Amino acid sequence: MILSSKNIHDLIDARQEGFSLERPFYEDDKIFKRDMEKLVGERWVLADHASRIPNVGDYFLFEIGKESIIVIRSTTSKIEAFFNVCRHRGSQLCSEAQGNKKRLTCPYHAWTYQLDGTLRPPPQMPQEFDPSLFSLHACHIKEFNGFVFLCLSKGTPPDFEEEYGGFSETLNFHGFKNAKVAARRQYPNACNWKLVVENFLECYHCAPAHAEYCSVHSRDQLLALGAGPGSGSEAAVAKYQPIVDAWNTKAKSLGHPTSMIDRDETSLDMAQLVRLPVNDRDYQSETKDGHPASKILMGQFKTFDNGITSISFNPLGYVLASNDFAMVARFTPRTATETDIEVLWLVDETAVEGEDYDVENLMWVWDVTIKQDKIITEANYAGIKSSRYQPGPYSTQEARVETFIKWYINGIR
Amino acid sequence: MILSSKNIHDLIDARQEGFSLERPFYEDDKIFKRDMEKLVGERWVLADHASRIPNVGDYFLFEIGKESIIVIRSTTSKIEAFFNVCRHRGSQLCSEAQGNKKRLTCPYHAWTYQLDGTLRPPPQMPQEFDPSLFSLHACHIKEFNGFVFLCLSKGTPPDFEEEYGGFSETLNFHGFKNAKVAARRQYPNACNWKLVVENFLECYHCAPAHAEYCSVHSRDQLLALGAGPGSGSEAAVAKYQPIVDAWNTKAKSLGHPTSMIDRDETSLDMAQLVRLPVNDRDYQSETKDGHPASKILMGQFKTFDNGITSISFNPLGYVLASNDFAMVARFTPRTATETDIEVLWLVDETAVEGEDYDVENLMWVWDVTIKQDKIITEANYAGIKSSRYQPGPYSTQEARVETFIKWYINGIR
Amino acid sequence: MILSSKNIHDLIDARQEGFSLERPFYEDDKIFKRDMEKLVGERWVLADHASRIPNVGDYFLFEIGKESIIVIRSTTSKIEAFFNVCRHRGSQLCSEAQGNKKRLTCPYHAWTYQLDGTLRPPPQMPQEFDPSLFSLHACHIKEFNGFVFLCLSKGTPPDFEEEYGGFSETLNFHGFKNAKVAARRQYPNACNWKLVVENFLECYHCAPAHAEYCSVHSRDQLLALGAGPGSGSEAAVAKYQPIVDAWNTKAKSLGHPTSMIDRDETSLDMAQLVRLPVNDRDYQSETKDGHPASKILMGQFKTFDNGITSISFNPLGYVLASNDFAMVARFTPRTATETDIEVLWLVDETAVEGEDYDVENLMWVWDVTIKQDKIITEANYAGIKSSRYQPGPYSTQEARVETFIKWYINGIR
Repeated sequence: MILSSKNIHDLIDARQEGFSLERPFYEDDKIFKRDMEKLVGERWVLADHASRIPNVGDYFLFEIGKESIIVIRSTTSKIEAFFNVCRHRGSQLCSEAQGNKKRLTCPYHAWTYQLDGTLRPPPQMPQEFDPSLFSLHACHIKEFNGFVFLCLSKGTPPDFEEEYGGFSETLNFHGFKNAKVAARRQYPNACNWKLVVENFLECYHCAPAHAEYCSVHSRDQLLALGAGPGSGSEAAVAKYQPIVDAWNTKAKSLGHPTSMIDRDETSLDMAQLVRLPVNDRDYQSETKDGHPASKILMGQFKTFDNGITSISFNPLGYVLASNDFAMVARFTPRTATETDIEVLWLVDETAVEGEDYDVENLMWVWDVTIKQDKIITEANYAGIKSSRYQPGPYSTQEARVETFIKWYINGIR
Repeated sequence: MILSSKNIHDLIDARQEGFSLERPFYEDDKIFKRDMEKLVGERWVLADHASRIPNVGDYFLFEIGKESIIVIRSTTSKIEAFFNVCRHRGSQLCSEAQGNKKRLTCPYHAWTYQLDGTLRPPPQMPQEFDPSLFSLHACHIKEFNGFVFLCLSKGTPPDFEEEYGGFSETLNFHGFKNAKVAARRQYPNACNWKLVVENFLECYHCAPAHAEYCSVHSRDQLLALGAGPGSGSEAAVAKYQPIVDAWNTKAKSLGHPTSMIDRDETSLDMAQLVRLPVNDRDYQSETKDGHPASKILMGQFKTFDNGITSISFNPLGYVLASNDFAMVARFTPRTATETDIEVLWLVDETAVEGEDYDVENLMWVWDVTIKQDKIITEANYAGIKSSRYQPGPYSTQEARVETFIKWYINGIR
Repeated sequence: MILSSKNIHDLIDARQEGFSLERPFYEDDKIFKRDMEKLVGERWVLADHASRIPNVGDYFLFEIGKESIIVIRSTTSKIEAFFNVCRHRGSQLCSEAQGNKKRLTCPYHAWTYQLDGTLRPPPQMPQEFDPSLFSLHACHIKEFNGFVFLCLSKGTPPDFEEEYGGFSETLNFHGFKNAKVAARRQYPNACNWKLVVENFLECYHCAPAHAEYCSVHSRDQLLALGAGPGSGSEAAVAKYQPIVDAWNTKAKSLGHPTSMIDRDETSLDMAQLVRLPVNDRDYQSETKDGHPASKILMGQFKTFDNGITSISFNPLGYVLASNDFAMVARFTPRTATETDIEVLWLVDETAVEGEDYDVENLMWVWDVTIKQDKIITEANYAGIKSSRYQPGPYSTQEARVETFIKWYINGIR
């Protein structure tokens, strides 16, 4: 697909408020490259949970677009990230998705790097060769409440504290630093990353497409806040507010966090954090029957408050945390028409599989929901390919999608 | 493949009469797009037989290039066609190849359309939203003697009656309106649609490539009229004419149609209709042994006249009808180098499988022939990829291919 | 991949001596097309061993880039080569990788060519058609000491004798003309042909990547001459020279050839021929244990001299010959990011499998080595895709890679 008739700037300028994007934004390679450079590549992206690499030398590969990043624990207290590219002839240093390395030795010519990225002087190099100029290319990295974030920018990354500092109290209360990954699953999607994001930011489709998800929540809640604050109409929010208020009072009385963050399309990342009741029934956790998913409460929770903490670091990274477990969703753009979703399920690090929690039960709501989302986002793209596709109008329940599109247009302009 | 050295107009102007096309016409994406827009998209294309959707709500999908069309029976007497694109966010409405729908409800957000394409007012839409402006995009449709034709044009389609009105008497005599689909098979071809058409419009290759087809027909016939009128040399036609004349006399005496239509490269569609004897032996039907394929004669045939009716609606749609069954061939361009062939075998709607006809026997001639064509057209394209390929000269038995190429060049100019 | 920011000439001019190439050289389609036209297509490429087609009418297909060439024995003493493209409508004439043909008859319309490429007058052609103008497009061919070389150029090919005449004495001594192919294996590589060549022209990677290969040779040898003359540092060459000198004296005393050819980056083909000891131990042949691979010595060898003859016709074709067998490696560019390696193992034509040689033992060293090379060259390309890849510095042990890159830049300028 080659962008020809209109250029990208014309398309950006022509974007009609309240309507979905023109077709090229969902499939054009040049726009995808621009998305990756100006937007994805310049923000902090959620990469994984730090518990994946507990020991010195443990590493995993984070792959996005055409990049492969080695995320490796260099000391007991420090994680480093490097582009998976040898400075000699460019070979990838690591090919396995994860492992443990004492040093990073290239499989091609054995150029060897310390875990801090510095090159050990290789043999047979010309006299003038200076190893200190050939350290691995570092990738910006930030460990934050147990989560690992990367920024692929060649320049200075955004100020992490400024963007996410306000999340600390709640994240800390949830004890994510002392969590472990109970389950992990990949969901490849044959569509552009923006279709995946748009789908995740509205609950207008929940009733038609997600019977299981709807069975766990309540209709009024989904209408008002199905995809977080800003995703429902004013009327729906007003109707549901009393239930939220009552839950807030209860949570506060237990000493549980209730603060809210909700940034708009002019912000760097549309960051959002909100705590809400699971539903208006007596559900303790976001599970099939509302019973806890794990016998061990996470973090500082001593008793269930029946709440769910909804966190959006940015349009590519989310955490939805009950009191006893959390699901973490990462969207990874691969090509203009391919996006990988990875979901992690976290529980307290002391919880024992089979005794304290059942993996299938833990995964149930979101595993079935993300599989349904794959079908509908791929059908969405199939229709967009038609010559008759034209941007269509958003409903009031898709207000947050409109926010996202404005944010996106701002970001690539 | 990107067209670079010569532009399309230069290639069109440089076309040498009597020779095959230059390589880019067989693989360039821009030329394919132009083919689809200026030619395929502006003509009536044969889509299927109406018996596929007998009941209100029955639908099938017709897919061509990047388009998917829902062809659905909206009332007992009317079939409608819509682009398979929701007016909300563009999702495909139907994903199954066929089925029955009371309404067309989008699987994404449940926007719901009546079978006439009008949108039921969806919930949660902004006040200013006017559902009447968001009906499905209709596709031009024409039901004609049991066949369903579509025209994908955004503008006014060609006048159907003017083009095909002259076919009615013969089609009606064959009773295609009261036919049913006895068998259906897909044959994907890894080559440009024009190579598929060129192959179908000449019988110069019959002797080398189609032993089975040749066993059913006669050599003189294939030389004179193997791919219909205009496909053989004058000498061959003259030699075979007495046999045609004798058969014509006989058919007329039975009251069977014998009129002929044969439009040239200056016409809209190169439409052609001709009745000929199956061969110069005593074959009643185009079958392995010349015996009838079905015990039930179609339409108004009371006795076998040993004729075959050869119909070309346009270069993408054909019917070859014996007295007791017909094969319908549709060529569907998918990409610059992919073309699907679908063949339908029709019998009278009252004929009973196993009793009146045997499916394997019915399909034999054309199933084996189309499979052979796949091999030779793909080998043709494999050779065309070489730097040494250059347009080659047509034989006198490929006269109709030359007509087609002239028609094609006229159409995309 | 579309070359945009810099054009090819800028990239060529910007090449930094002593460093690997910029990314587009390893993946850009336009550069690949240029490589094929200006370089691969204008040189003699090693196609196969003549023993593959012993009888009149025996043929094999040689495929490179988008070309398919029929190499066929037209008489007992002559081999011809033709582009696999019918002059009628362009169909490939042969689809099987090898076989025997009395004539070359197109499977489409049966146009038939003599084994010298001339067209027999086809039927049904217009009066003015002159068959003598429609012979098959010939491909330049040269049979040389049992090897078949092709040159795909439309113009005059390079002077074969001038380039390779000097190889004759040694090739003749090895008796390649009386060899047979004992084994043959394909190794498809998902990377650009230049990465395959670069890998083959240096032994800096042997220690890290090729344990088996290193076990057969000696460390000092690999440092000095691991990829032939010009592949090691001066110091390493000086250290190993006494062993080479001693071996040379011995070989000369046996009357075995010891002459050396070593052309640099300004030459047409970087042709190279050198004889060296297998290692500094008592290895008679390049096998796992140093014992002969075949009981029958090849050519004029009467006794083992423990030498190995290393021949590089050009960067795409190599022979590594012990006294009793030889491995022949051909690199065939397919697309910008795909390269097929084919390896042939030759033994004397009188040697009997199972009695005189064991195929597994014969193949061992190079089969395992080429499989390892596939992994490392593909990992090399995976890293080159990253935005952080930049040309890196060659070691002194990669001097011949630098020679190759200079030769390449000269060739496509």
